[in-house]
Amino acid sequence: MTTEALADDDRLNPADLRTIWRILTPEERVEAFHLMARDDAEEFFLGLSASDLAGLMHNLPRNERRSWMRLLAPDDAADLVQQVPVDERDELLGLLDDPTRKEVTALLAYKQDAAGGLMNPRYARVRPEMTVDEAIGYLRRQARTNLEILSYLYVIDESQRLLGVVSFRELFAAQPEKRVRDVMRTEIVTVRDDQDQEIVSKLLTENDLIAIPVLDAEGHMKGIVTFDDVVDVVQAEATEDIQKLGGMEALEAPYLDIAFGRMFRRRAGWLSALFLGEMLTATAMAFFEDEIARAVVLALFVPLIISSGGNSGSQASTLVVRAMALGEVTLQDWWRVIRREFASGLALGSLLGSIGFLRIVVWQAVSPLYGEHYLRVAFTVAGSLVGVVLFGSLAGSLLPFLFRRLGVDPASASAPFVATLVDVSGLIIYFTIANLILGGTLL
Amino acid sequence: MTTEALADDDRLNPADLRTIWRILTPEERVEAFHLMARDDAEEFFLGLSASDLAGLMHNLPRNERRSWMRLLAPDDAADLVQQVPVDERDELLGLLDDPTRKEVTALLAYKQDAAGGLMNPRYARVRPEMTVDEAIGYLRRQARTNLEILSYLYVIDESQRLLGVVSFRELFAAQPEKRVRDVMRTEIVTVRDDQDQEIVSKLLTENDLIAIPVLDAEGHMKGIVTFDDVVDVVQAEATEDIQKLGGMEALEAPYLDIAFGRMFRRRAGWLSALFLGEMLTATAMAFFEDEIARAVVLALFVPLIISSGGNSGSQASTLVVRAMALGEVTLQDWWRVIRREFASGLALGSLLGSIGFLRIVVWQAVSPLYGEHYLRVAFTVAGSLVGVVLFGSLAGSLLPFLFRRLGVDPASASAPFVATLVDVSGLIIYFTIANLILGGTLL
Repeated sequence: MTTEALADDDRLNPADLRTIWRILTPEERVEAFHLMARDDAEEFFLGLSASDLAGLMHNLPRNERRSWMRLLAPDDAADLVQQVPVDERDELLGLLDDPTRKEVTALLAYKQDAAGGLMNPRYARVRPEMTVDEAIGYLRRQARTNLEILSYLYVIDESQRLLGVVSFRELFAAQPEKRVRDVMRTEIVTVRDDQDQEIVSKLLTENDLIAIPVLDAEGHMKGIVTFDDVVDVVQAEATEDIQKLGGMEALEAPYLDIAFGRMFRRRAGWLSALFLGEMLTATAMAFFEDEIARAVVLALFVPLIISSGGNSGSQASTLVVRAMALGEVTLQDWWRVIRREFASGLALGSLLGSIGFLRIVVWQAVSPLYGEHYLRVAFTVAGSLVGVVLFGSLAGSLLPFLFRRLGVDPASASAPFVATLVDVSGLIIYFTIANLILGGTLL
Repeated sequence: MTTEALADDDRLNPADLRTIWRILTPEERVEAFHLMARDDAEEFFLGLSASDLAGLMHNLPRNERRSWMRLLAPDDAADLVQQVPVDERDELLGLLDDPTRKEVTALLAYKQDAAGGLMNPRYARVRPEMTVDEAIGYLRRQARTNLEILSYLYVIDESQRLLGVVSFRELFAAQPEKRVRDVMRTEIVTVRDDQDQEIVSKLLTENDLIAIPVLDAEGHMKGIVTFDDVVDVVQAEATEDIQKLGGMEALEAPYLDIAFGRMFRRRAGWLSALFLGEMLTATAMAFFEDEIARAVVLALFVPLIISSGGNSGSQASTLVVRAMALGEVTLQDWWRVIRREFASGLALGSLLGSIGFLRIVVWQAVSPLYGEHYLRVAFTVAGSLVGVVLFGSLAGSLLPFLFRRLGVDPASASAPFVATLVDVSGLIIYFTIANLILGGTLL
């Protein structure tokens, strides 16, 4: 770690506690928390995730809870309250002062992943008719309250409508006697309080903003969402996509924290669905049972061929799903993607086909395992690899488009999902090519 | 889109251009760019990625380039220069004024993914002996230059050493006659200029900072890395992990932008390596060729069984790799993870085993496909599923630990990699159980 303690002080510091936090028991956490100086403890407390906060608060002595609870900004307090069981919420809310409790209760009415659920209702504001010097003076007074003072001042009219935004930089640089209305910007990126956090995070990052104002349906300013919430959103969205791509439903809590039963259900659903799909391979294999009985050598290459299709499909779907999540690929790009994946699939399939062909021919020279028709077997395997890898690349890249078109999250086109689809079709491709090449000889 | 144009103006606005940007040709981009009002164009320009900037600059009329180039902060200019071919770099650098060119050249010496490569060398600073009022006055003068004015002032001594940090909020709230040294914080989170961007992003997000100071080995302050760079880093790191988890090397450019040959190489390497590993399945199958010849029915379930192992392995490795990337799971958690995955694997395997058992028994009642020993076949398949899913969950969760221990990126334990490993071992598990249960009857 690189936290540089310029003060010399050998008490436990927040960075150290952060590194060991996860391996401590709930009781040890409280103990370690109490070992810090008050200001360090406050810094550490404000940096905890909502679920860690909930755990810590639960174990803190009852008489300490009020002061810690009142340290939280309303949006963080709302997140914390949402983490505890319903019957304990009122107790926590009761620790707050009246105006804050009202704010927090209002925030709890929003969905947690909507802009309204992320926003802080306390932001620094000015009136348009103030001079720059008055605005700076007013800002200094606001800094003594518990408002979020970041980098912008919001210019508000009497009915809480947003007129403009001034960055601190613009305010500081302006002539002292100018009016706020003359230095403010009026083209403002805003979000509605019911918009999804993904949109909030997209607008904030695309525009490199530190905070974005949240308006209700009537255009009244309700609060701001700040950049730190957005980093959390970006991480959470990536985690959700990664878990879906791994072939399961996204977990709602960290891996080691989530209850076993919940994790089991998140995984069992997709695993069973994939298993049912994969049963079609047994049906397909049964359909070709005669071929296998006549030429057992064909069975040997089944895992190799279907897994190659699955692997190339996994690559293609991963690329497209991530590019969609980043906005690099949109629905209208489908034709460009098909052409790319057709070329990729052909090239990659030819590469694997060549390796497979060589493998059989060389192996045969060492120990004649594949019988007199080994060359035909080699061509069958090589041809099937080209076909299966091509099919895998196309299926893997097109499924995310199909899913998005149907309103399903493209990340559901997971590696295992594509692999299952490609396994069944791969078997059909393989045995069809085998019948073509080996018909009359082995078959 | 939700960009609210409070000014009524029907010229092209930045948000609109951003939505259509990707589908425009280079020439159309220049044309559209010129359609915007100058201040909109500047806002749009500053929001472009380095690679888009490079493309746009390349196509702008020569006489316009200087003013656009000079609009960029030194860190962004350095990123842009790194995007163009080596022989065009001097021309771009020549557009800058002398001091900025020196700064940019200094930045170019850093690795692009080090703190030094991300930082902006222009930050707002004050001296410790200034009063709060003097500091605010000085800040207002600095705001008229092109310094990064965000939310902190850095307190620097004569030899550019960092003494402390004051947030705007703390500065504004302080008594006007107090000294900066009395209101500044001295416990500061800093990074070294040669530290990796992943560490920078971790420190910044964990501490909810808007900017983090970058020091050289001697403790001199060199610049600040700001939150907007970190969101990009977080996205880039997630993309890298997702692509690795999909079974390929991470691409260095967006999917639709990267040259075909580069993308082919990034995919072909892992695909060939997995193919060579998967060849062991053919060897394993050949080893059990006699069993298959005697009981072709065994071959029918090979894809079903090995893919179930691969799918459960994919879930486990995905969960552990992501939890590691987020710092939720560390090396010392290995034993907790094993116990979790042992229980999960057993539960999920039993679920799939039961479905598989039922499938064979019910199917047999409908059409007697599996012969007189169908019950023994059903037990073989069910038992193998339990074993294979358990093995997949354990292997998938342990490989990331092994990789991290060996200094390899845990994300290399991709779904396809785990599946390949589990395929080979799955065949051995399957045929061993088959020999135990079917020995003397079918085998």
